[in-house]
Amino acid sequence: MLSDKPGVRNLVELCAAKGIRHVIISPGSRNAPLNISFNEHGAFECISVPDERCAAFVALGIGQHTGQPAIVCCTSGSAALNFAPAIVEAYYQRIPMLILTADRPPEWIDQGEGQSMRQSGVYANYIKKDYDLPLETQDQDNLAMINRIVNEAIHLTTSDIPGPVHINIPFREPLYGRKDWSDIPLPKSIDYPTPVFHLPEGEQKKLANAWWSSQKKIVLCGLLPSSDELENSLANLVDENTVVLSEITSNLHHPSFLTGIDRLIHLIDKKEFCPDILVTIGHSFISKKLKLWLRDFRPKSHWHIGLETVAQDTFQSLTQHLRTTPEYLFDTLVKHKGEQSNKSGFHFNKKWSDLALKINQQQAEYISNAPWSDLKIFDWMLSRLPSNIELHLGNSSPVRYADLFPRKRGCVYRSNRGVSGIDGCNSTALGAAKVSDKTVMLITGDISFFYDSNAFWNVALPANLKIVVINNQGGGIFRMIPGPGTTAQLDHFFETTHSFSAEGICNTFGVNYYSAKAEKINENTWEAFLGEQTNGQPAVLEIFTPRTTNDIVFKKFYAALSTRP
Amino acid sequence: MLSDKPGVRNLVELCAAKGIRHVIISPGSRNAPLNISFNEHGAFECISVPDERCAAFVALGIGQHTGQPAIVCCTSGSAALNFAPAIVEAYYQRIPMLILTADRPPEWIDQGEGQSMRQSGVYANYIKKDYDLPLETQDQDNLAMINRIVNEAIHLTTSDIPGPVHINIPFREPLYGRKDWSDIPLPKSIDYPTPVFHLPEGEQKKLANAWWSSQKKIVLCGLLPSSDELENSLANLVDENTVVLSEITSNLHHPSFLTGIDRLIHLIDKKEFCPDILVTIGHSFISKKLKLWLRDFRPKSHWHIGLETVAQDTFQSLTQHLRTTPEYLFDTLVKHKGEQSNKSGFHFNKKWSDLALKINQQQAEYISNAPWSDLKIFDWMLSRLPSNIELHLGNSSPVRYADLFPRKRGCVYRSNRGVSGIDGCNSTALGAAKVSDKTVMLITGDISFFYDSNAFWNVALPANLKIVVINNQGGGIFRMIPGPGTTAQLDHFFETTHSFSAEGICNTFGVNYYSAKAEKINENTWEAFLGEQTNGQPAVLEIFTPRTTNDIVFKKFYAALSTRP
Repeated sequence: MLSDKPGVRNLVELCAAKGIRHVIISPGSRNAPLNISFNEHGAFECISVPDERCAAFVALGIGQHTGQPAIVCCTSGSAALNFAPAIVEAYYQRIPMLILTADRPPEWIDQGEGQSMRQSGVYANYIKKDYDLPLETQDQDNLAMINRIVNEAIHLTTSDIPGPVHINIPFREPLYGRKDWSDIPLPKSIDYPTPVFHLPEGEQKKLANAWWSSQKKIVLCGLLPSSDELENSLANLVDENTVVLSEITSNLHHPSFLTGIDRLIHLIDKKEFCPDILVTIGHSFISKKLKLWLRDFRPKSHWHIGLETVAQDTFQSLTQHLRTTPEYLFDTLVKHKGEQSNKSGFHFNKKWSDLALKINQQQAEYISNAPWSDLKIFDWMLSRLPSNIELHLGNSSPVRYADLFPRKRGCVYRSNRGVSGIDGCNSTALGAAKVSDKTVMLITGDISFFYDSNAFWNVALPANLKIVVINNQGGGIFRMIPGPGTTAQLDHFFETTHSFSAEGICNTFGVNYYSAKAEKINENTWEAFLGEQTNGQPAVLEIFTPRTTNDIVFKKFYAALSTRP
Repeated sequence: MLSDKPGVRNLVELCAAKGIRHVIISPGSRNAPLNISFNEHGAFECISVPDERCAAFVALGIGQHTGQPAIVCCTSGSAALNFAPAIVEAYYQRIPMLILTADRPPEWIDQGEGQSMRQSGVYANYIKKDYDLPLETQDQDNLAMINRIVNEAIHLTTSDIPGPVHINIPFREPLYGRKDWSDIPLPKSIDYPTPVFHLPEGEQKKLANAWWSSQKKIVLCGLLPSSDELENSLANLVDENTVVLSEITSNLHHPSFLTGIDRLIHLIDKKEFCPDILVTIGHSFISKKLKLWLRDFRPKSHWHIGLETVAQDTFQSLTQHLRTTPEYLFDTLVKHKGEQSNKSGFHFNKKWSDLALKINQQQAEYISNAPWSDLKIFDWMLSRLPSNIELHLGNSSPVRYADLFPRKRGCVYRSNRGVSGIDGCNSTALGAAKVSDKTVMLITGDISFFYDSNAFWNVALPANLKIVVINNQGGGIFRMIPGPGTTAQLDHFFETTHSFSAEGICNTFGVNYYSAKAEKINENTWEAFLGEQTNGQPAVLEIFTPRTTNDIVFKKFYAALSTRP
């Protein structure tokens, strides 16, 4: 039986009708009407996660994997604020999520009640939309309002640009009443057919003309969900004049696309290799060299393709925001392909591709001779990735290292690049593993791992979760960027140096633990870590790398690339 | 040398001039100008705490202990949101805190930069005031504005009702420049002498008349900092007609004050024991029975005394908000004491005191015969508390249990009762221990302990920190309140049941670990835990209590009290 509160009954029935399946519940009392109803309804898989910070990242991982909103639900008070880091990540990463916060009734806010605060609009800076439900009610207008809000809220989580939506729900005691609702009609579900975003015929022709008459074109691919359709559309566009640069988080892995952008930008002739038309799809570009280059040498035209109402102008060069889907635009360009195409002698693509080829050779040679370090471990691991896994990459070193190496066909790559925090990457991967029938692997740094160690404080850990912790004793990233290396406080106030190991955390929560020094890593450890675990729990492999040589190997890597053969 | 950014130099110098001494830094790059300057200035003790959620609670503990703001400082992006749980607690608990968030320059917000979000006003719902500093500048008007903001912000953290104040600080790269500022005059420090809040003579007499002609008066003491002056003023007021009820967090321990309010309310004649005048001082009352009683049997007059602009009306009975200090009001009443006093035969105080005496005897008898359980362990521990310690009590069972027992003279009691979250209690106690020359002990539940286990991920753990973890395998509180006991989902979605131990966490971070089953607890373990640790690290004592009998012992306790002898 569901809660006896009519608003809750309607909310839960609408969530079921709209196809929401996953509910992350952080235990509490004020949210009891919701907890009871989601548990007893039958349509939902409920997962209990005690630390709200982790709970919301678990919901993020599920939303990222499924493209559908997971619900995250908590009691009143500061619990709601612990959701915030995952919500801001969902907002900027464009992941659907429905946040339900239980609240005290308005008459007790600011009156000294425990676990109460002003919860209305508490995520205002980083939420797609937020609502307050009317206090529990039998009034039909109020119930109609609740229905409308819930319909709207669920719709908004995935419409146009997906994101988090918040419903704050005040409850009066008693909280534990139940009712058999079977005789009462279901609440009305509003339908929102997905609109198609096309461009007018005249605009299509204008764009195609510009495109096919240009000899230097780059399509730059940022963070995107995996899509074969998009990959095919885009591959059709690659020609002598067109280069596709794809970051690892774009999940666009066609062999004709160039990868490892940071390396390429390092060596290009900044002016000659600059496109006349830059097209961007996706968002949250990782490569810092790319940003600096394009901000300096602004392309004449920069078209951003995407459904957002207002486009980001990441390179301060935006000239057109084409509010449609990339597939549609690419197909449209091909459809309008004229006589003038492929007639240039400029060989833009060949210039880029030759460079990429050379760099790949230099890289392989350098790494095979380099001492064991973070860079070499990434090479070692990524060449041994199982097929068909979902690979999560922590911020900020892992995703940057991984982007230097070839992609594995069939793998899906994820990284929390919305706001690029180090918080919550264990929980995000755990959420994905809960709903995936494949292996979900996370490669993370020690700092990220410890930050989110409460992810494992969870009674339902998924066995298909594999975590590699690159333990370089703390935030080696700051040794690699210019600046902090020159300060005396480096060790404590920029880096988080330490000598801790993940072992105690794993033992506490029943996670299988493997470890190796980088120079001692071998196939046996790797296979044992990847294999099925006898206790049906996840596994962690902690690889210790040398903190103070990692940055030297990395800097020399770029120096080695600079030596043009 | 400080940062070469003039605004940062002024900010840091003003913090020093205003007497701020403690800066909690969460490592990062965008906050480098602040990190460099606070470290190198010389006036500050800087503490590095990697998990921002913990960092802000450490600052809370320092502010709670010293009455002065500690600074908490982080990089841009979601880091700032991890501060939020401690900020809302500081806001409602009225603890001074200065939050400095580094930000990206405004031109890059919402443009796909990493670690960026809309940070302005991000704590709007739970901050005393927030500011955005102008982007780094050489402009004299802008610098004057920065000076004025910093003066104001520091002042506001402690003025009238203390609380958290936020300054958001955008920085452009480069971030690591330094400068010798010795030739440049210091920024202007604005002085804010503390005003005195007195009441007009006529009002004083009116209040005194009402007071001394009433035969049933209760002064109810909520959360307050420790103050001998206040305790003495209040003790002068106790007479035949006047009862002082003090909660453990009031830090008012005079022998004439009655304690263990929940037990008293359980047995009183609700009408006869209701006061004609209720005076409240402090805030965040713990006793739920007290709230329900006073909301039902509303006193004719309820005077709240406190400097806040608007008083809470916790019992829906407020008739007067006297905007002055309790000491002043109590002294004023005594000064205007007339002939009519102490002439009643109603014996209000005697009725309450006799009841308290009887309950204390019943309690002692019941507990001595009760099986080992949470209740009995609190009795055992609290009777063995060292003198002169600062005792922190976790939410929500520990503070409720502890409130049932006699206070130890010389002890200071703390609990995060602002919003009463379970988050951050380890870090809060750690913060207090960092600045205290006494032992700081925390008694916490297992759920709270795990929630904030990252508190120990810290290179500078204080040796004077002692933590007792009452491990009842998860949130027994929900077995003690009416409602959830009747639902099937109890184990996972209201309680957080588990079989985890604190040992692995302690081993990971070098914390000394002791454990005992409740029934096996003995003086040797207790003394070893309290004694100096050979490695100069804090100590944890984990006491395992029986999850499913704790609630029975507790319910029978109230039944035993009900049997009037």
